[in-house]
Amino acid sequence: MKVMEKVERWGIYEWTGNGHDDGNPFVDYEIVGTFKGEHEEKTVKGFYDGDGRYVVRFMPSYTGTYTYKIYGNFTDQTYEGTFEVTEPSEGNHGPVSVANTYHFQYADKTPYYPIGTTCYVWELQSDELIEQTYKSLAESGFNKIRFCIFPKHYDYNLREPRSYPYVGTPVDSSILTPDNFLEYTGKTEGNNWDFTKFNPEHFRHIERCIKRLMEMGIEADIIVFHPYDRWGFSQMTRDQDTLYIRYLISRLAAFRNVWWAMANEYDLFEHKNAADWDYIGTLFMKEDPYNHLRSIHNCREFYDHSKNWITHCSIQRQDLYKGAEFTTEWRKKYQKPVVLDEIAYEGNIQFGWGNITGEEMVRRMWEGAIRGGYPGHGETYLSKDNILWWSHGGKLHGESWKRVKFLLEILKETPGLGLKCDTSRMEEWDAVIGIPEDDKLAEETGYQLFYYSFMRPSFRQFRFKDDKKYRVEVIDTWNMTITDAGVHSGCFKIDLPGRQYMAIRLRKA
Amino acid sequence: MKVMEKVERWGIYEWTGNGHDDGNPFVDYEIVGTFKGEHEEKTVKGFYDGDGRYVVRFMPSYTGTYTYKIYGNFTDQTYEGTFEVTEPSEGNHGPVSVANTYHFQYADKTPYYPIGTTCYVWELQSDELIEQTYKSLAESGFNKIRFCIFPKHYDYNLREPRSYPYVGTPVDSSILTPDNFLEYTGKTEGNNWDFTKFNPEHFRHIERCIKRLMEMGIEADIIVFHPYDRWGFSQMTRDQDTLYIRYLISRLAAFRNVWWAMANEYDLFEHKNAADWDYIGTLFMKEDPYNHLRSIHNCREFYDHSKNWITHCSIQRQDLYKGAEFTTEWRKKYQKPVVLDEIAYEGNIQFGWGNITGEEMVRRMWEGAIRGGYPGHGETYLSKDNILWWSHGGKLHGESWKRVKFLLEILKETPGLGLKCDTSRMEEWDAVIGIPEDDKLAEETGYQLFYYSFMRPSFRQFRFKDDKKYRVEVIDTWNMTITDAGVHSGCFKIDLPGRQYMAIRLRKA
Repeated sequence: MKVMEKVERWGIYEWTGNGHDDGNPFVDYEIVGTFKGEHEEKTVKGFYDGDGRYVVRFMPSYTGTYTYKIYGNFTDQTYEGTFEVTEPSEGNHGPVSVANTYHFQYADKTPYYPIGTTCYVWELQSDELIEQTYKSLAESGFNKIRFCIFPKHYDYNLREPRSYPYVGTPVDSSILTPDNFLEYTGKTEGNNWDFTKFNPEHFRHIERCIKRLMEMGIEADIIVFHPYDRWGFSQMTRDQDTLYIRYLISRLAAFRNVWWAMANEYDLFEHKNAADWDYIGTLFMKEDPYNHLRSIHNCREFYDHSKNWITHCSIQRQDLYKGAEFTTEWRKKYQKPVVLDEIAYEGNIQFGWGNITGEEMVRRMWEGAIRGGYPGHGETYLSKDNILWWSHGGKLHGESWKRVKFLLEILKETPGLGLKCDTSRMEEWDAVIGIPEDDKLAEETGYQLFYYSFMRPSFRQFRFKDDKKYRVEVIDTWNMTITDAGVHSGCFKIDLPGRQYMAIRLRKA
Repeated sequence: MKVMEKVERWGIYEWTGNGHDDGNPFVDYEIVGTFKGEHEEKTVKGFYDGDGRYVVRFMPSYTGTYTYKIYGNFTDQTYEGTFEVTEPSEGNHGPVSVANTYHFQYADKTPYYPIGTTCYVWELQSDELIEQTYKSLAESGFNKIRFCIFPKHYDYNLREPRSYPYVGTPVDSSILTPDNFLEYTGKTEGNNWDFTKFNPEHFRHIERCIKRLMEMGIEADIIVFHPYDRWGFSQMTRDQDTLYIRYLISRLAAFRNVWWAMANEYDLFEHKNAADWDYIGTLFMKEDPYNHLRSIHNCREFYDHSKNWITHCSIQRQDLYKGAEFTTEWRKKYQKPVVLDEIAYEGNIQFGWGNITGEEMVRRMWEGAIRGGYPGHGETYLSKDNILWWSHGGKLHGESWKRVKFLLEILKETPGLGLKCDTSRMEEWDAVIGIPEDDKLAEETGYQLFYYSFMRPSFRQFRFKDDKKYRVEVIDTWNMTITDAGVHSGCFKIDLPGRQYMAIRLRKA
């Protein structure tokens, strides 16, 4: 008797088989799978994985028995079978989607409060460095990471990646220096790629990384295109883009932790316009069977985040001084979750986007979070080995990452799903007040989180007109302490230490 | 032989004599003086100083022999005489006026770069405290101070002033507490003032303070009206305002260091509208014989600083996060000097406008200064004796005041008169670049002051296309050091310590 194959809910059922390897199987042959359970039926495209091997991946959204059929011109045969979808294992909450307009939750309704980091090409580094990155991520508590499929050409990023996405050979990079790299940005001469032939090992490796992140409970915010390019990957034709995107979807969409970021700094692409981005975003929307989250990230001008293919705003702050503080306005404008994927980097490199203090990084994160947005972290400290977290992962050298778990714990104690900023109280013009998104819950719980940012009040006075009793806590967001300040009602005064980065949390006693 | 009386240029010639003391001399009698020198002839009003004494004050703008004639219905007599105006003594540069559109200079063409502070009612405190304030001012290097003629009613300002401007009696203040003072703001019941009878000693005392400031080289930015009032001084009729303003002009205008600030937080006055402020400002413009500087200060909304009676913008920042950074825009909008009279206070009181760090205060000052504006200081540290610099003067407790002289020294080394912000260089988007206001001087001197604010570059790269040779200095604005970084040209790299608050100054070698 054959034992039935088992896969957990929101896990991956993977079918592998052989087929034609003549011609260019990446474009000449197709493989499709239809999967049917009690509550869903999905047809998904498979992909060619090299060496005559074809793969179909499927993520079941329900438990129970599934049947499948694998077909297509990759072979003359059709394959059928059955598998059992079991309850998810601990830590598997399913894919994340938008909920409560401005927020996120996992498929099992567990709230998800993203606090991510950016390591553009961490997965294209050495095995040793990649392991170090996992270790750092585990210590930090980040639950999202942004990274690219394509290698990166930029200051501090002049080395070759471990592999390329296409078959071919790259331009000689030995002439590159920190002083001349800009001249070679966007120059494609000397490259020799076949944009119809993928390098399966490049993707297999990235998949291993995504799987490892998944096991760690970290969402993989995949940057599909980026402009820091000396290979031509940012200048492909629409057909080449389409082939690439379909290959990505067929390989990666079954990973529950995948998000699609169409571009980093879309406005720096010289060879793509808004119609291209709309085409790309719409293609993901139509063809990703699991409707993973989709965004597009700016350098200067925001993309129009109100477009229907965009699920949430992925924002780089536009102003040198003020960023996360605009979360309130951006939420109102776009009526979508606001993810602050770049609000500058803690570090000390020469660029203004990459040299704020740890204190300021944490301040920006709290400002964004209390306003009901989702702050991202970044780190750019110079190092002798030229390994900067921002691109390469590795070790974290700063101070802000140490405060991520604490912020996450506070967010997880929000009643309901997500905070919003209460801007209605004139007398509190100088505090950022986070209250539950849901007004009824806000009233019921009395939850109010007052954040004082860089200000240093030695005390604050509260004047409530009702007689609600509040349990008051003083939160030091930098030193990560929560101090009970007693139960109060009506008019009362709460002492503070006169330091920056303090908060006061009120909850109905 | 009678020795000719002598007064220095921009000093005060004061005529005193007796006249009628029946009725109400403040309104019933008039005294006028006409002064004539080789280069000017001015008619100025005098004032009643109590006890039958009448005074006329005149500030000569030129040297040489002046004749005068004193007349009016204060007496039947006319007085004539002659005095000699000598060269100004050291430190006397004359009154300040607007120059080079966005800047200030003294009458003798010496540039004046205001870096002021605010002590609203320092001069209405005890003699001992006032002496302490002079000492603090001398140590700090501030060259302007904002203060009120009327006493102040506000949190931490519940004590009685040393004197009142009018004859009468104030409301009982013994019931006031930090918790109830707001309820009494604007309540005038219980006061008993005769708004037609000034208390000369109140003004004589203030004059002694202004004179002392003058001797110290400090401009007296006099706040004519303010809304923190429990006496009714903010609610007088137009006739009462007019009488008060004329009395002020006749007493104070001859002091070369006087500026007129029509109001602090004009938009908090419930009993005055824009027409009132225009009337008041225009009255000063028409009747002040010396055309002293005139401004009006906001709480939330700016007054329309483009009005002709306003000589310069006196600005309180509107945004919790960003203030001095807008100097560039405000200059462009109003085409007048931008004086940042409140960009928050270094301190630790409960209010968001009064609890920033010394570092942030200094940062805001540099941001404003390098953009060609003029930053003001303020300090609000809690103290057991409730003496806060912001209102009472006394001792300075913070850190920012210690950095004022250093910033002033840097400003004084500007070629020509005043800086402006060079916003034309995209590659320097993350630096604030101060260059001389005059383009020809900027080109000739190569002067460029790059300020990195809260950013922490470990180095900066410069790429000049010409072969101009620059003497480079690294300036630590917090630690107040200037370090020679050699002579460079073309493309060069300047190392920095990777700390906040650094600047680089370039000057043609």
